[in-house]
Amino acid sequence: MKPRISLITLGVSDLARARRFYLDGLGFAPAQGSNDDVTFIDCDGLVLALWKRASLVEDAKVADGQGFGGIALAHNCRDRESVDRTLAEVERAGAKILKPAHETFWGGYSGYFADPDGFVWEVAHNPFWKLDDEGHVRLT
Amino acid sequence: MKPRISLITLGVSDLARARRFYLDGLGFAPAQGSNDDVTFIDCDGLVLALWKRASLVEDAKVADGQGFGGIALAHNCRDRESVDRTLAEVERAGAKILKPAHETFWGGYSGYFADPDGFVWEVAHNPFWKLDDEGHVRLT
Repeated sequence: MKPRISLITLGVSDLARARRFYLDGLGFAPAQGSNDDVTFIDCDGLVLALWKRASLVEDAKVADGQGFGGIALAHNCRDRESVDRTLAEVERAGAKILKPAHETFWGGYSGYFADPDGFVWEVAHNPFWKLDDEGHVRLT
Repeated sequence: MKPRISLITLGVSDLARARRFYLDGLGFAPAQGSNDDVTFIDCDGLVLALWKRASLVEDAKVADGQGFGGIALAHNCRDRESVDRTLAEVERAGAKILKPAHETFWGGYSGYFADPDGFVWEVAHNPFWKLDDEGHVRLT
């Protein structure tokens, strides 16, 4: 199995609210294949999907849990100013700032926010991880 | 904010067990920057990190939850045979098969597994989403 992640699905409790946040608030564009039940967002090499949480639970044959599920997504920025700007943008769009931007123990600069469903994102500048021209992180 | 996901962090309860599964079992390679506290896996454009769940909870300033957290990752394959082969491989490595490979309602072929911490992965062939030469999905 190659280390490849093609799709990240967020199981959301209120699809209309999630769309307002990600599409209207953050300005992400719905990609082809999106319909009443699911929204796909092209992330330049992988796809972020918004789907009803009950549908995801049923499809994956798991028992649903409660609260933070132990996964965080990170959006890396090219500089600290972009971190500040991005956190301000997501807050205007309705995100809850969990941790304001700050100097991190690993030598970077980051903050965390929760989307309307509580999914956790970090917004970070990591001076040791360069983004290539396409914005991708490569460690090899 | 551009739709960019740079890093996915799995907050694991037992880092040694997670490493046995992803590194020894699946054959993923630890990337530069990995150390006793964290393992980074290069996924060709984004990074998968294994970090102690308590550290992630503390760092993100969230209250921890229980059970499935509503996020699923998907690994897409070029054909159905690769789906079958991959599910067999992860099962040998200690994953729990949540749902065997089957024809899906959306016209593809997929199965789900849970890693040792219960994180949910789908292994899928989607005939409508072509993987490019690098294995990336692009919807635009």
